[in-house]
Amino acid sequence: MDIRNYLSEKRERIDSFLASYFDVPLAPAVLGDAMSYSLLAGGKRLRPILALASHEACGGDAESIVPYAASLEFIHTYSLIHDDLPAMDNDDLRRGRPTNHKVFGDAMAILAGDALLTEAFYLLSNSHRSARITPSVRLKVAREIAMASGAHGMVGGQAEDLLSENAPQDIDSLSFIHTHKTGALITASVRIGGLLAGARKKELRSLTHYGEKIGLAFQIIDDILDIQGDTKELGKQTGSDERKKKMTYPGLYGIETSSRKAQGLVDDALFALRAFGDEADPLREIARYIIRRRN
Amino acid sequence: MDIRNYLSEKRERIDSFLASYFDVPLAPAVLGDAMSYSLLAGGKRLRPILALASHEACGGDAESIVPYAASLEFIHTYSLIHDDLPAMDNDDLRRGRPTNHKVFGDAMAILAGDALLTEAFYLLSNSHRSARITPSVRLKVAREIAMASGAHGMVGGQAEDLLSENAPQDIDSLSFIHTHKTGALITASVRIGGLLAGARKKELRSLTHYGEKIGLAFQIIDDILDIQGDTKELGKQTGSDERKKKMTYPGLYGIETSSRKAQGLVDDALFALRAFGDEADPLREIARYIIRRRN
Repeated sequence: MDIRNYLSEKRERIDSFLASYFDVPLAPAVLGDAMSYSLLAGGKRLRPILALASHEACGGDAESIVPYAASLEFIHTYSLIHDDLPAMDNDDLRRGRPTNHKVFGDAMAILAGDALLTEAFYLLSNSHRSARITPSVRLKVAREIAMASGAHGMVGGQAEDLLSENAPQDIDSLSFIHTHKTGALITASVRIGGLLAGARKKELRSLTHYGEKIGLAFQIIDDILDIQGDTKELGKQTGSDERKKKMTYPGLYGIETSSRKAQGLVDDALFALRAFGDEADPLREIARYIIRRRN
Repeated sequence: MDIRNYLSEKRERIDSFLASYFDVPLAPAVLGDAMSYSLLAGGKRLRPILALASHEACGGDAESIVPYAASLEFIHTYSLIHDDLPAMDNDDLRRGRPTNHKVFGDAMAILAGDALLTEAFYLLSNSHRSARITPSVRLKVAREIAMASGAHGMVGGQAEDLLSENAPQDIDSLSFIHTHKTGALITASVRIGGLLAGARKKELRSLTHYGEKIGLAFQIIDDILDIQGDTKELGKQTGSDERKKKMTYPGLYGIETSSRKAQGLVDDALFALRAFGDEADPLREIARYIIRRRN
């Protein structure tokens, strides 16, 4: 299969859904502008695509879960806006453009993030049901995403990350940050694709392992790209981890060992999918793509 | 009925539920500390109590919806933390104590708010079902709260409020701010109490009217207290609207006219409940209490 085609086709589907959110005008208009500025800035849409691919791997029809998948991008985007704030990472560049607060000011950026987070749960509780996607499954999906993105997941990871700046390096803390700050939502993305397809426990367990492994591989490659990558290709300033004295895998173990670790994690992820048939090929190719990517 | 007893009994029930959220330790601990610092700071718990009272007015058992009611306080508290930030209203005092960012720093305060908002939806999607509270009703409740607190509700109101500072006074904008920034979540609080009791359309319509009227009355009294109230009793700095040149009802119409307006709104709210029996007495007393209150 051609993973590039697959990724761009799914990305376009997600992009068009995200754009349609703004069909209903928002008041005040500038709040809508601030939300769409970041939401429609053309990210990779990795989390939604993982949900769609995982849904297909379990025999589901990707089209039927687009709103659920898109909600993950609302959450991811809110987290980027808040992380970039001067009070947090103080970043000026994101996805090749000035960060949200640089354009709209800190206050509106905070509100745009708050709104995107809230709208994610509106989407999750409002999305159409089907014979397979019962209200009970939809609640389970909302719960899964809330758990992965809240205090016990992403926000917890971000808080630990904040505390670790300029602090003595500690491998347990690094691992906590990775599994929570990025890992939890990536794993949840994979899992909800399965949940919405009515996956059995054993399948969900495999998907969970797959998600955990690629989540960590993704983060390690992110940290390597922060050292070796190209600011223009990445769309954000490189070298920021070193400037902020952030602890990272390549910082602790060097680039070569870290690359090997990422490759090993992808192998583990592929192994976790061994019981799945061809329907899981997109998931397999995404795992391989994650360590090949340049941005 | 003795409304003071009623309010303190319900407040204690909500407080004990909120405290129990922290039975599971959070990591990093300081994130949990920042969340509990504001969540357990002893607010009036008006929104949860409205949900409980409205549930009882429709024949429901308040105890069965405590987690749903408590989720409203998670959302209200997150909004206070973010509103108090230096980038927003820059307030130093809240509920008689230094604001969250004064104690934990801006970054942790942003994260504590994000976490509280997310956990609200975790609560809503995780709360126990019963014969009456089906998954479908629970989704409806989550949707209602998301709509009232997101871009089309509270966050939209806060964004408009931000834009209105130092801007020419405009009654349409003032009305938009009131109905969105505080009104939407108060109305939703009343409505979900009804929804969770299986209220019929006509009852819900009455509850909606009641909520809209007391929401506006509440805001007008808030603005009057900001002028006339006592900092110690209020637990926050008075005179802040004037300092920030915020448009308010008493600022536009004077205190006497505004008080009369608030009284008229409470009368309207009581009229909206005319078809309800004694079970709605707590709702009625709360409406009266709202204009009598000193904090």
